[in-house]
Amino acid sequence: MKVNGKAWRSIWPDATGRSVHIIDQTRLPFELVTTELASLADVANAIRVMQVRGAPLIGVAAAFGIALAMQADASDASLAEALQVLQATRPTAVNLAWALAAMRSHLEPLAPTLRAAAAWSQAQKMADEDAGTNEAIGDQGRPLLDALYRKLQRPINVLTHCNAGWMATVDWGTALAIIYKSHDAGIPLHVWVDETRPRNQGLLTAWELRGHGVPHTYIVDNAGGHLMQHGQVDLVLVGADRVSRRGDVANKIGTYLKALAAFDNGIPFYAALPESTIDLELGDAVKEIEIEQRAAGEVRAVTGRRTAGESDLTVANLVDAGTNVANPGFDVTPARLVTGIITERGVFAPAQLTASLAGRN
Amino acid sequence: MKVNGKAWRSIWPDATGRSVHIIDQTRLPFELVTTELASLADVANAIRVMQVRGAPLIGVAAAFGIALAMQADASDASLAEALQVLQATRPTAVNLAWALAAMRSHLEPLAPTLRAAAAWSQAQKMADEDAGTNEAIGDQGRPLLDALYRKLQRPINVLTHCNAGWMATVDWGTALAIIYKSHDAGIPLHVWVDETRPRNQGLLTAWELRGHGVPHTYIVDNAGGHLMQHGQVDLVLVGADRVSRRGDVANKIGTYLKALAAFDNGIPFYAALPESTIDLELGDAVKEIEIEQRAAGEVRAVTGRRTAGESDLTVANLVDAGTNVANPGFDVTPARLVTGIITERGVFAPAQLTASLAGRN
Repeated sequence: MKVNGKAWRSIWPDATGRSVHIIDQTRLPFELVTTELASLADVANAIRVMQVRGAPLIGVAAAFGIALAMQADASDASLAEALQVLQATRPTAVNLAWALAAMRSHLEPLAPTLRAAAAWSQAQKMADEDAGTNEAIGDQGRPLLDALYRKLQRPINVLTHCNAGWMATVDWGTALAIIYKSHDAGIPLHVWVDETRPRNQGLLTAWELRGHGVPHTYIVDNAGGHLMQHGQVDLVLVGADRVSRRGDVANKIGTYLKALAAFDNGIPFYAALPESTIDLELGDAVKEIEIEQRAAGEVRAVTGRRTAGESDLTVANLVDAGTNVANPGFDVTPARLVTGIITERGVFAPAQLTASLAGRN
Repeated sequence: MKVNGKAWRSIWPDATGRSVHIIDQTRLPFELVTTELASLADVANAIRVMQVRGAPLIGVAAAFGIALAMQADASDASLAEALQVLQATRPTAVNLAWALAAMRSHLEPLAPTLRAAAAWSQAQKMADEDAGTNEAIGDQGRPLLDALYRKLQRPINVLTHCNAGWMATVDWGTALAIIYKSHDAGIPLHVWVDETRPRNQGLLTAWELRGHGVPHTYIVDNAGGHLMQHGQVDLVLVGADRVSRRGDVANKIGTYLKALAAFDNGIPFYAALPESTIDLELGDAVKEIEIEQRAAGEVRAVTGRRTAGESDLTVANLVDAGTNVANPGFDVTPARLVTGIITERGVFAPAQLTASLAGRN
């Protein structure tokens, strides 16, 4: 996607083939800063502190992390350790496990001398495939918004939570790929952007939408229910970090509350995701999934510009050390609240999901 | 209630009888600063910028505002203007209209020369009555928590949204009066404190609970649904800004989302409020109530300590001027999601509410 007219991806290999570059998402939207990751430790840290974030991007970044580990030491022990270190960075998103499993099955059979080159080329392939998959998600979802526009005959209002945009993937995004494809096709739309405390990924979404010229309004996470009660939301569209075989959607904390409000007001709720986000091992995700408990510091303090419009940053400390803080990172929206799942292969009701994957290996 | 062992109210008359003092709630929890209000304009501004906030406290502050206006000019025209200026400060809370109507009916029949003294004494009486009413709400609600504790035989977890504590009233609070009375009676409990963006009144609630020694944990507004799905919330207990005759509860934006999650998980949802918050003119509050649209600046920026533990403040600017912001201040929880309404006279199912008020003039 473009930033000020220039095409960007969220991650790209260095010309030397010895490092990768990322956009440091902890600095956005205040500054567009890139960071070079030259080792397994660099990549693991970038995932952990959310310099890279978003389930699909985490998967691709981890693949490059394996490749960098293989450049340093291509032994079986090194491969096993790299897989373990990266898997431990973020427990909830299944794309991470999926990408690591793909790298393992690709590399384990190879002689160590072949692994560095094979890993690098596999990571690049996964990055390209991610961009292609997400563009396909956009194409699959666009007709839904088109149909809604034809029915309503006015600009349609979409509410989204967190950032499921190109920043959360290698390119295009998941939920936002559908927004971009629809906007590009001339469907008039407006996006309600949830702030998404504690990390305020709504700022990333607003930054992306501005960059692409999509009308949008930023709201606090508390506001969506009221807007839905008053006919100001036509569709809720989010990404996902893991989807169970029955169609439960694990996504950024707070998604479940918006799904409840959508259901209560007869508004369709869709999650958009690559098939790699679907975890067939998972039945009842509310009961079975491990929800990441993140650091209290994310809740205790908020970062922003010291002066509006300037790039010097300040941290506002909100919650004193004497007050306890809890910070669950995700919640699960049960399938009964989900209208449909949009993947690169189509739009499926939760009950159809398993059948749609019948051909998957 | 006590702060560091000293008894406080949120508003109190100056010994001269020519001004009132308030705790400036825009500075809490970072600093405990008091402000003197000496004119109608001072009071109107303090309500508008939320130096005083909370439906019951707004009503009492407005009564003192009328008294100060009468000291300056006790004519019919001055009274009419003061009523109009104060009514315009905050449109949603009905206690404001209730307090102004009470002042009007008390003062209009009097000769102007009698009005200043009568208004002052009436405002003081309303302040004392508010404290007494809220203590009674606490006593009425306490048996509910006691019963829950006896049933569960472990500390009970209460989730609250915004600040319905003593800061939102003259003393005791509404929802938190029940917490304080229960805690004082030895019922083991823990409170989940919603942050309540955009103004973060959860910080006030955490500050109050710490002051009173009640165990509590601060969470972002997105987290409550997940906690309810996992059995970590036994009761949702909030205040209210206006309640319709059928029991719809208008309260701080985001309350509706928590009520939906409570309903979805079979968790009781109660609102605690003085009878003056019930508006019998109002039927379907979702359709009929005017929801205050507040300034975008509240969403765009967050205030906190520059250094943790220190009192110098900083403002973190989050949302750039190029991105639109919407900021509805309240939402309405339909009666079908409300387990009960707790007033100074008892606990009522929404359908019983009108009957319970049959004796009201």
